Amino acid sequence: MAHRLGLLLPLLLGQLCSQLLGTSGNSMLHYWNLKAENGSWGSKRIQDNASVASAHTLLFSLDYQHVQTPFEITLWIMFASLAKIGFHLYNKIPTVVPESCLLIFVGLIMGGLIYSLNDKSPPVMNSDIFFLYLLPPIVLDAGYFMPSRPFFENIGTILLYAVVGTMWNAFGIGLSLYGICQVKLFNLKDVSLLHNLWFGSLIAAVDPVAVLSVFEEIHVNEKLHILVFGESLLNDAVTVVLYKLFKSFSEMPSIKSLDILAGIGKFFLVGIGGIFIGLLFGMIAAFTTRFTKTIRVIEPLFVFLYSYLSYLTAEMFHLSGIVAIIACAMSMKRYVEANISQKSHTTIKYFMKMWSSVSDTLIFIFLGVSTIGNNHEWNWPYICFTVIFCLIWRALGVLVLTFFVNKCHVNTVTRKDQFIIAYGGLRGAICFSLVFLLPEFSRKKLFIAATTVVILFTVIVQGMTIRPLVDLLDVTKRGETSPTVSEQILIRFFDHLLAGVEDISGHWGQYYWKDKLEYLNSKYLQKILLREYDQARSSIVLLYEKLERKHAIELAEAGQLNYLKFYPFKVQSSFLASLPGKYEEELR
Amino acid sequence: MAHRLGLLLPLLLGQLCSQLLGTSGNSMLHYWNLKAENGSWGSKRIQDNASVASAHTLLFSLDYQHVQTPFEITLWIMFASLAKIGFHLYNKIPTVVPESCLLIFVGLIMGGLIYSLNDKSPPVMNSDIFFLYLLPPIVLDAGYFMPSRPFFENIGTILLYAVVGTMWNAFGIGLSLYGICQVKLFNLKDVSLLHNLWFGSLIAAVDPVAVLSVFEEIHVNEKLHILVFGESLLNDAVTVVLYKLFKSFSEMPSIKSLDILAGIGKFFLVGIGGIFIGLLFGMIAAFTTRFTKTIRVIEPLFVFLYSYLSYLTAEMFHLSGIVAIIACAMSMKRYVEANISQKSHTTIKYFMKMWSSVSDTLIFIFLGVSTIGNNHEWNWPYICFTVIFCLIWRALGVLVLTFFVNKCHVNTVTRKDQFIIAYGGLRGAICFSLVFLLPEFSRKKLFIAATTVVILFTVIVQGMTIRPLVDLLDVTKRGETSPTVSEQILIRFFDHLLAGVEDISGHWGQYYWKDKLEYLNSKYLQKILLREYDQARSSIVLLYEKLERKHAIELAEAGQLNYLKFYPFKVQSSFLASLPGKYEEELR
Repeated sequence: MAHRLGLLLPLLLGQLCSQLLGTSGNSMLHYWNLKAENGSWGSKRIQDNASVASAHTLLFSLDYQHVQTPFEITLWIMFASLAKIGFHLYNKIPTVVPESCLLIFVGLIMGGLIYSLNDKSPPVMNSDIFFLYLLPPIVLDAGYFMPSRPFFENIGTILLYAVVGTMWNAFGIGLSLYGICQVKLFNLKDVSLLHNLWFGSLIAAVDPVAVLSVFEEIHVNEKLHILVFGESLLNDAVTVVLYKLFKSFSEMPSIKSLDILAGIGKFFLVGIGGIFIGLLFGMIAAFTTRFTKTIRVIEPLFVFLYSYLSYLTAEMFHLSGIVAIIACAMSMKRYVEANISQKSHTTIKYFMKMWSSVSDTLIFIFLGVSTIGNNHEWNWPYICFTVIFCLIWRALGVLVLTFFVNKCHVNTVTRKDQFIIAYGGLRGAICFSLVFLLPEFSRKKLFIAATTVVILFTVIVQGMTIRPLVDLLDVTKRGETSPTVSEQILIRFFDHLLAGVEDISGHWGQYYWKDKLEYLNSKYLQKILLREYDQARSSIVLLYEKLERKHAIELAEAGQLNYLKFYPFKVQSSFLASLPGKYEEELR
Repeated sequence: MAHRLGLLLPLLLGQLCSQLLGTSGNSMLHYWNLKAENGSWGSKRIQDNASVASAHTLLFSLDYQHVQTPFEITLWIMFASLAKIGFHLYNKIPTVVPESCLLIFVGLIMGGLIYSLNDKSPPVMNSDIFFLYLLPPIVLDAGYFMPSRPFFENIGTILLYAVVGTMWNAFGIGLSLYGICQVKLFNLKDVSLLHNLWFGSLIAAVDPVAVLSVFEEIHVNEKLHILVFGESLLNDAVTVVLYKLFKSFSEMPSIKSLDILAGIGKFFLVGIGGIFIGLLFGMIAAFTTRFTKTIRVIEPLFVFLYSYLSYLTAEMFHLSGIVAIIACAMSMKRYVEANISQKSHTTIKYFMKMWSSVSDTLIFIFLGVSTIGNNHEWNWPYICFTVIFCLIWRALGVLVLTFFVNKCHVNTVTRKDQFIIAYGGLRGAICFSLVFLLPEFSRKKLFIAATTVVILFTVIVQGMTIRPLVDLLDVTKRGETSPTVSEQILIRFFDHLLAGVEDISGHWGQYYWKDKLEYLNSKYLQKILLREYDQARSSIVLLYEKLERKHAIELAEAGQLNYLKFYPFKVQSSFLASLPGKYEEELR
């Protein structure tokens, strides 16, 4: 995508260069346009020998195609980062408009520029690049920093929304759109039921990237956040299955009931297979970091490599990559963090945040760029009804499902929360990439147009109004202060107490299973996966140490650390000497 | 390269899969072999529709080509990292054999396995991938953490070795090999003078990757280290010019004296142009980080993006990318570090070390893999004389040049140091990539064989014996303790004193220029490039703060920080609340 979308900046650069260099620049531009059209990556070995020969005696010569791929990728990332800085320079804009909307606007402007400069549609986001390179960092970041307590406390509700809710939406939207297609006036008779269901399956998926970027800015309470966000992550398995099921149905001459059964079986396979692959890689990653004590510098690498491998492996077997990478990240985190050094941890944390932030930015910009162009077929009724059905079916689904959820839970989901859950069902780049993956057929452009409108409507209209609505409805926000250490100790104490109560009463609830898992963890897993098993401390002790370290740094920075006064300079230089030789230079 | 070299692991994996899956696995393997042969990256859009259609009703299905490129790259990096861990598990091996040798051996074994499995040569390292993706991280790391004081103190000597020394070696080796070719007995009459000189120009370049990896382990004194390492970095400009000059001469019908003049002019252009591009991007990078206060998370990105852009831009204009990236890194470091947060700094530092370490590992493994195969033409006299001439001309060059250097300096280069400089002239992946970039001609395979032998000889024989030799000769090693803060203050004081003395005596030496640069820096550059100009502190104050912070952490970890005892728990939770909302979760 980077090079198919790499039109504007390199084009401007190329034209600048051709002005400077005369002939060779033009042949480069010509070459470059050829490449952009045939759309293949990195065929840079085909050297334009003629132009090289004509230019090499000159003192200045230019060889753009040699560095094209990395240069354009770097330029796009740079452009995205600068756009991000630009928004934040003016503090007022991001408080009103979510960053995702701003980025889509930037993309729309760029797309318009490309369109007017080139007189043809700007290239669209490549689905391969999206799924293989842009999505994983965001999901990894989400999984690694997922607050596990609220996630597991609400796992039942999240799964209900993700599995039943998504299927409800997919079939609801697909079937009612098929109903619309039967109205003669609308001229949509040729859109078959299967195509409508297929479209329904891709438009039903709530997008984690869009949800994350909007919900991170509005700070709703933790439970509400995890319900919407967890759903958007876990519905991937359902979307993958439904999408691929309809794809294979469309390729089959006739659909037998056995195929539908296989489809249902496949759903469990895709989800549980994803979890299994994720856990497997997570355990291997934790085990690997046992042996990195002498070579701290490559520790962070393993976190990235193993999670990415779990994603790719799952994708390879047509399982849910998102589920796999989340399972991998959540399972490895605890052990990896105990094994690696503090600095490696900082590196992982910041690099993950940075990477996901860049991916996120690129996705929204590319969404905007890809919107412009003439690959849309406009049909008012179909598109309007798509938006309306998306809203209605989601609202209905949330209402019905929450009704059942509230029957089983004491801590119910309030009406206000339900409204925000329904309203927060943003669609994003996943739908967009899936619609482009549809095989060519007569109404594909209509589907593309409808998907684009739904994404822009949800991200821009809903995304911009959700914050005022949250304020207006007075939705419970996230607490300003985190629980204190004593509160945390109390929570732990109650966990154990409730596990005991559940055990005695014979009710195998969440506390019972949590206790069993903790036992399994301390009995077997920690011994295998942790380097210094004896020193494995509870997370409260770790938190306390972290706080103390933080406090010490603050004292040192405020100059209140009086201890140093008693030590001569020699002691300080002994710190330097105690560092590994490699880093000495730099500290000096 | 990653995919051309991605033979062994995916092959094994592919065969495993094909056993499991029957037909579709085979078609995949076939497809994959086709791809490996035509050697084009990422043409994954050519979907093998037949096999997809035959497999999609199965519960399990495999789509390897979809994830192939990232999967193989990830596997190679993983393999390299695991190899690195493996060496360090047994502490004894790396103390005797340098890591680079071990990695080459691993590569040789893998190459042998691929050769015996496939019955054809394993693919060789792709020069494009080497120069565009593997080399920049290593050079960036080297430039960013280059100790600037010894570098600039010895810049004259380094430049003399790098420029005059490399040309001396190139012409010396080229001309004397041409002499060898005139001996009728050796059957080398068809190797022209131009080809010999061209070969000389590529084999003369001392390799920064090889030098860095060997010298980092032997801890010689700082001056000796910077002389060898600085030379290996800066000779890139000379190598580029000589290599491209001979290339264009070989394409010309006749060589005029004007062309030779242009070549000399080009040398200055390539070096100074590289420095200029590097400084330009370095200043832009420093300027950009002025505006990242509200969005700390993408700060580290700019350091990587701008340095990489400087490298690519320089390469694009046929300037020295290595010189550009070093100039960029050295110029930006000071300002960027003052602007960015402490955590961003840790991220940059550790990520750079990690990245360069991985690149380094991959390069040596690929060197080993590429060695195996039948793309060599063996000619005993030519290859032996190449090794001998490389040694002789380097020794002579160092002797002669040091003679002149010692005439001008009080702090002379000793005989022992000279020996280590000459002996440390290791060749590596740069020569290897350059020899593969030679156009096809009858004796290319001979050149490849000779280059391979020289690299293996220098890295393995010299790399393994240099540590015992350093011990035997009792070469001054790096001091165990770093200078104390008071020593540093004294050094600064003398700098100013000597600058004053030089100014009064009218001698414009290094201190005079350093003083002028400092003035320029504090008068103009800092005001433009630093966010909080008023707070810009001298590096001694920063060092003191760093030491204090370090000490505070140590105190906290030892539990000696009594301050905390006086604060109730509430104070600690206020630390949590003072963190940006995004990171709260994770701390809890």
